[in-house]
Amino acid sequence: MTEKTRMDNKMLKDIKASRRLGKKDYKKETDSLGLRISEMQRICKDENIPVTIIFEGWSAAGKGTRISSLIRFFDPRGFEVFTTQKTTEDEQLRPYMWRFWQRLPANGRIHIFDRSWYQPLMRGYDRNEAKLADPVNDIKSFEKTLVENGGVIIKLFLHVSVREQEKRLNSLADRPDTAWRVSKSDFKQNNKYGKTLKEFEDMLVSTDHEAARWTVIEADDSRFADVKVYKAVLAAMEKAVQAKHDAKATGGEETGDAAAAPGIIVNSRLAKVDLNQKIERQEYSLRLKSAQYELSRMHNAMYEQRLAAAMVFEGWDAAGKGGAIVRTVAPLDPRGYKVAPYGAPNDTERAHHYLWRFWNEVPKAGHLTVYDRSWYGRVMVERVEGFCKTADWKRAFGEINDFEKQLTDSGIVLLKFWLHIDQDEQLRRFELRTNTPEKTWKITDEDWRNRDKWDQYLEAVDEMLFRTSTDYAPWTIVEAVDKPFARIKVIETVRDRLQSALK
Amino acid sequence: MTEKTRMDNKMLKDIKASRRLGKKDYKKETDSLGLRISEMQRICKDENIPVTIIFEGWSAAGKGTRISSLIRFFDPRGFEVFTTQKTTEDEQLRPYMWRFWQRLPANGRIHIFDRSWYQPLMRGYDRNEAKLADPVNDIKSFEKTLVENGGVIIKLFLHVSVREQEKRLNSLADRPDTAWRVSKSDFKQNNKYGKTLKEFEDMLVSTDHEAARWTVIEADDSRFADVKVYKAVLAAMEKAVQAKHDAKATGGEETGDAAAAPGIIVNSRLAKVDLNQKIERQEYSLRLKSAQYELSRMHNAMYEQRLAAAMVFEGWDAAGKGGAIVRTVAPLDPRGYKVAPYGAPNDTERAHHYLWRFWNEVPKAGHLTVYDRSWYGRVMVERVEGFCKTADWKRAFGEINDFEKQLTDSGIVLLKFWLHIDQDEQLRRFELRTNTPEKTWKITDEDWRNRDKWDQYLEAVDEMLFRTSTDYAPWTIVEAVDKPFARIKVIETVRDRLQSALK
Repeated sequence: MTEKTRMDNKMLKDIKASRRLGKKDYKKETDSLGLRISEMQRICKDENIPVTIIFEGWSAAGKGTRISSLIRFFDPRGFEVFTTQKTTEDEQLRPYMWRFWQRLPANGRIHIFDRSWYQPLMRGYDRNEAKLADPVNDIKSFEKTLVENGGVIIKLFLHVSVREQEKRLNSLADRPDTAWRVSKSDFKQNNKYGKTLKEFEDMLVSTDHEAARWTVIEADDSRFADVKVYKAVLAAMEKAVQAKHDAKATGGEETGDAAAAPGIIVNSRLAKVDLNQKIERQEYSLRLKSAQYELSRMHNAMYEQRLAAAMVFEGWDAAGKGGAIVRTVAPLDPRGYKVAPYGAPNDTERAHHYLWRFWNEVPKAGHLTVYDRSWYGRVMVERVEGFCKTADWKRAFGEINDFEKQLTDSGIVLLKFWLHIDQDEQLRRFELRTNTPEKTWKITDEDWRNRDKWDQYLEAVDEMLFRTSTDYAPWTIVEAVDKPFARIKVIETVRDRLQSALK
Repeated sequence: MTEKTRMDNKMLKDIKASRRLGKKDYKKETDSLGLRISEMQRICKDENIPVTIIFEGWSAAGKGTRISSLIRFFDPRGFEVFTTQKTTEDEQLRPYMWRFWQRLPANGRIHIFDRSWYQPLMRGYDRNEAKLADPVNDIKSFEKTLVENGGVIIKLFLHVSVREQEKRLNSLADRPDTAWRVSKSDFKQNNKYGKTLKEFEDMLVSTDHEAARWTVIEADDSRFADVKVYKAVLAAMEKAVQAKHDAKATGGEETGDAAAAPGIIVNSRLAKVDLNQKIERQEYSLRLKSAQYELSRMHNAMYEQRLAAAMVFEGWDAAGKGGAIVRTVAPLDPRGYKVAPYGAPNDTERAHHYLWRFWNEVPKAGHLTVYDRSWYGRVMVERVEGFCKTADWKRAFGEINDFEKQLTDSGIVLLKFWLHIDQDEQLRRFELRTNTPEKTWKITDEDWRNRDKWDQYLEAVDEMLFRTSTDYAPWTIVEAVDKPFARIKVIETVRDRLQSALK
């Protein structure tokens, strides 16, 4: 039996689904592989590696049975099986991949998917559900970022021959207790086997990439299929553990060094910002009132038109994020928005991909999420403080752009604000806070420590603004020395963007 | 204006909904109350007090507007508003209160509910949704346990007069942009105002209890209503902070002492357990195979009949919980069950009521959750190790019984296993683990430390078995020195209980 665990340029039609394995060989292989798989589960747990296994394939190819065989070797406290079924309303109202982000394994756990994010490419979408703008690339970028952040994805495609599939479908349809499991479309798949084969082939070829390769499982014979599944799973887990050890050995854990490297952004956007801009008190009141009135009206329209929006607030400590947020949400119906504040991740959050906790709060259609600090922590605080590896934050620019593209592709209006002040103004505000009893709670030792690294942060922010200003999700730099000016700029920007997004 | 924040034996019909407040007084009160409310939010955050505010009342009583007024004073990063709407499928398939447990505030946060768990008593249930067996008592016990574990619940009932309600409903119905907000049943409520008044009165009286009193808000005049809401919220938050300080001052934080008190359970159930019971290897294989076969069949029937089940596994360290669980779930379709292992709570879990993390895994109709350790930690490890106050674990017996009653009332079959071994057998297993390389990962220093407290644990377990063995959720004590015997007893108990629960 071959050890091959990926397509190896072989076309699906050339893979012989009918390969068989004798009972005795099966027993021998299973006993030895089973032990090793159990052991690998423990090692992946100790190594904090999250393992995702997906089962796709022909109808009646035996996905459920293969999953049952495989999980015999897993400690049931460490895995969970998910079935991709009819989308729920909660899912319909959010970007397509949201449901899978919700279900990603924490570090050290194993999640098994019976059908997965490949369904759009295989069966199409459910009615009403959000669609991927560019399924092949969206899926590849999703898998890539999971793997590059330390996860494993094992993709198994169960392949049966046209004869075997027909036999199974008939046998299922004939028995009263299993008839419900077979639908017309399953028989249609069998009738158009050749055409479907070509489609599956295209899908496998276009989504087979370095980060997560497909393994085709010849599944006419369940013994052969079982053993090949075991081998594929074991090999992938072993490879992930090895990669983790290698990374440790070669110093792949280095952090922060590049944060102090000479500036690579020649044209600092922040250097050109005119911080002297001001608005007089009276004009401020009038423009604030008028913009708030319009926002309130538009928030209702958003709900009616099912338009979703997300706002990201980033900025220097004491730049006035809180004040700008309060004035922006004040006129809105509280049932239609949520302010999600983010500090250091808690331990559940730390055990997931860094984008996971932000995906959890992605607004549903008609709603608004205000992110008070955001995923940009990856390329600011995590970079400067060395909380992640250099390779991690460097890769994050692309990951963030992909993430934001998915949000905006799904129809979410995304606004990003950088509230900018200079060092003198920050010092003035820190001192004011320190000396005003009602405000002392707002200032911490950490604020002072961050201040000492102003230049490193400045460089990180400049690079962030440069690399993540896209046409679909541009940054708005807000001159925030004069608070009224900053608040008006924020709220009027929100108004204008929503205005043009609404019908 | 009165400071009264509860019903004070006054009947709803005697409360004059039309009380008014002048513009000038309103401004003055609002300015001063607003500042204090903002301050109290900060204090409750520092004191880790979770605050729940619910708005109920007549249709068109102005719940949404009152909420909008109130939240002006809250830092938007610290609160969230929830609307109780049409139940989702996920909610329909679980016990009624599940949706609210999901939405409880973490310590230090404020959650505001526009309509709440009182809807069944006011409007009835949605079609298909799970019902409370005894709504008044279920709600009171829910509120009581939240408050007794350190939370605040502020219950506001917005009261409008028949005339004012009619005026508002007409005005809403007349405007095209608000007409959708008014339904036939709203007008019906107005037409049968007197009858509904009586029903609301009954509800308020029957659910007004020490732990969470109702405040009726006279709501014809929005200024009067706003100010009364502010006062009620402020008073409740202040009271909670005061109570927390008092508890600290009077040593309310004492822990663990009673764990060493003389035994109060005269008749130890564990002392009478015959640990010599055994099953021979061959009989074991046959009975295991047969029970597993039946379980697999019944698991399908559960799914078809939408029967849910939950199993709780508790027992001494090394008593064999893992082995018993593995054999019980082995024959089941992995898409229909979940094993949920519980260790020390993580920080998100610690910031919630101790039952919260178990509510999260309550099985939905047709599914099974296996709890590997459970809420009984409260009366075992938390009691013995002094992780909670004496009053907390003493109160927990009743809280647990109420919780389990809600599960079984909603149709969930609940099985609880205590796997029992003696000290000698535990020592033998610990030593085996220490001396067998493949098993050393199973034994930790903590296991040895727990072992030193055997007698204290024994007393705690005896009291637990005594106080939480109910007719709806009895304990099964499993003699576990002989592993085959234990496994057969577990799996056959499961089989028999499911058998009698299935049609």
